[in-house]
Amino acid sequence: MSLSIVLLAGGVGGAKMAEGLMHSRSGDGLSIVGNVGDDQEIHGLWVSPDIDTLTYTLTDRIDRTKGWGLKNESNRTLDALEQLGADTWMYLGDQDFATHIYRTEQRKQGVRPSVIAADIASKLGLKVPLLLATDDTVPTRLNTDRGWLDFQSYFVRYQCQPQITQVQFQGAEQANATPESLAAIAAADLIIFAPSNPIVSIGAILAIPGIRGAIENSSAYKIAVSPIIAGKTVKGPADKMMRSLGFSSDALGVAQCYQSLLDLLVIDTADQQYCNPIQALGMQVACTDTLMPERGDKVRLAEELLDMYQAARPDNNNALLQHSKPNDKSEQVCR
Amino acid sequence: MSLSIVLLAGGVGGAKMAEGLMHSRSGDGLSIVGNVGDDQEIHGLWVSPDIDTLTYTLTDRIDRTKGWGLKNESNRTLDALEQLGADTWMYLGDQDFATHIYRTEQRKQGVRPSVIAADIASKLGLKVPLLLATDDTVPTRLNTDRGWLDFQSYFVRYQCQPQITQVQFQGAEQANATPESLAAIAAADLIIFAPSNPIVSIGAILAIPGIRGAIENSSAYKIAVSPIIAGKTVKGPADKMMRSLGFSSDALGVAQCYQSLLDLLVIDTADQQYCNPIQALGMQVACTDTLMPERGDKVRLAEELLDMYQAARPDNNNALLQHSKPNDKSEQVCR
Repeated sequence: MSLSIVLLAGGVGGAKMAEGLMHSRSGDGLSIVGNVGDDQEIHGLWVSPDIDTLTYTLTDRIDRTKGWGLKNESNRTLDALEQLGADTWMYLGDQDFATHIYRTEQRKQGVRPSVIAADIASKLGLKVPLLLATDDTVPTRLNTDRGWLDFQSYFVRYQCQPQITQVQFQGAEQANATPESLAAIAAADLIIFAPSNPIVSIGAILAIPGIRGAIENSSAYKIAVSPIIAGKTVKGPADKMMRSLGFSSDALGVAQCYQSLLDLLVIDTADQQYCNPIQALGMQVACTDTLMPERGDKVRLAEELLDMYQAARPDNNNALLQHSKPNDKSEQVCR
Repeated sequence: MSLSIVLLAGGVGGAKMAEGLMHSRSGDGLSIVGNVGDDQEIHGLWVSPDIDTLTYTLTDRIDRTKGWGLKNESNRTLDALEQLGADTWMYLGDQDFATHIYRTEQRKQGVRPSVIAADIASKLGLKVPLLLATDDTVPTRLNTDRGWLDFQSYFVRYQCQPQITQVQFQGAEQANATPESLAAIAAADLIIFAPSNPIVSIGAILAIPGIRGAIENSSAYKIAVSPIIAGKTVKGPADKMMRSLGFSSDALGVAQCYQSLLDLLVIDTADQQYCNPIQALGMQVACTDTLMPERGDKVRLAEELLDMYQAARPDNNNALLQHSKPNDKSEQVCR
């Protein structure tokens, strides 16, 4: 029996971690729960950036330079929309438009968003289950010095410039977790919080009461990887966002975001000084190199997480041991 | 004061006639009433082929080889949709998709289809008013030996192969003519029925009771150009369709379709033998070369129609005379 892993994943950081886990020794036990908080209607089409980034990355279609969107993309549709006077601040390529057109049409026909996401992923060749946290619409809304903004306006249109004072996941309190994600969490041996934005990526997933409750009640081992390295995010506005919401923009701030949910927080070796204060919050800490520029780095980090699980749950290692290889780069755990 | 002309126009034949009239001496008085009977939702997007053919032709964006679609078109969106399992029998190019995305989004926002069509035409640089017969949805439905088909399925998917036994313009009896088209018809000195399919193009326009009534009550001079030359259509299934619905597929059949509506039917010189039987139906006939392969042919035919109007309504010629040039190729009118 293979190890059951659930990865909570946001956009680019989530997709990198997912890629590492998919190609790790426990890839066949992986399920991904993706964030739909930054879904949005653009040109009347339903765009689901985090989910598409996961699908495109894991099927090797992603534009690796940008970390999002499809490679070899063109923008003739967008140019023509611009000529018609449409507001084209959000880059959508010609091939990517097909995904949004298909998704929108399927939603119109009443197909569950989860089923659509799985269908698109499967058509593009993804074997790993890609689950949505919820089938309900839970748009992330940001109160800023420019007023309330939807996520893509903040993120793409205004390039994360506005000062955020408040984050809302509209309708999340009433939203139902998908049965697929609840089943995956219930069956999980290991739950991993990807190095995604703790506020608007992982935060939007945890804002669904059913998901948060299932994770809290799960006996799985729970590891988060900090997206902040030496006070900065690799990509995206997590650091800025954390600061403006009163968290410190460092590994300790990440630990505070996930307090009471984690067994272990994995931080970068650059952040060793946070080991003690994080442990004081009631979780273990491990330091390792968390940057994942290449496929090899992603798999290496994934294997290290599996090793950490193995060390923490020595009784549950049957599945892991069958595939385990000696790992000469062992992480440094501050205990 | 310029001559007020209303052109009732279907797809490719309608667009050719429109182009001729637009570049004729009375181009500034032209309004076009277009057919929305073959509008259809495809991939969840609202496609309006006849209207787009008019817009693309008159703004010189049309693929002249095909007679429809945009020139220099690519199909990356369609290919990607195919990969997602969508049924892609209807060719839609990347730039063309923008038109459908924009139209669909505007409809969703409650903008009147007429206003959207005018907006798109204006954004693409069209100066001639492009009006819709109705803002209501009046889909052409064809009863065939393969059952009831929507128009694009018959026309594109099954390439006009099915035998048609019945044509319906669903909802047309209850549909309202647009105020813009009624105003244009009321103000018209000359109404021209383009050499379009009399059944499903012009027929779909005339199926709107308000339009038909306004034309019947109008004192404008009414000319139709036959789309059938020597028993065949230049393009499209009009001949086949007329036969299977019990009309003869010739100039006389066209005259029968328009009986009681016309002052004059213009037929091709190849069809002179139909002059007498057509006159017996109570309309005048004129023979000329009605093929319009090039811009010059379109303008020449348009100018001839204006000459015919001028000859028939000698008292209303102030506007025309100002622009009139000697026309050495005079049409042969059978009287």
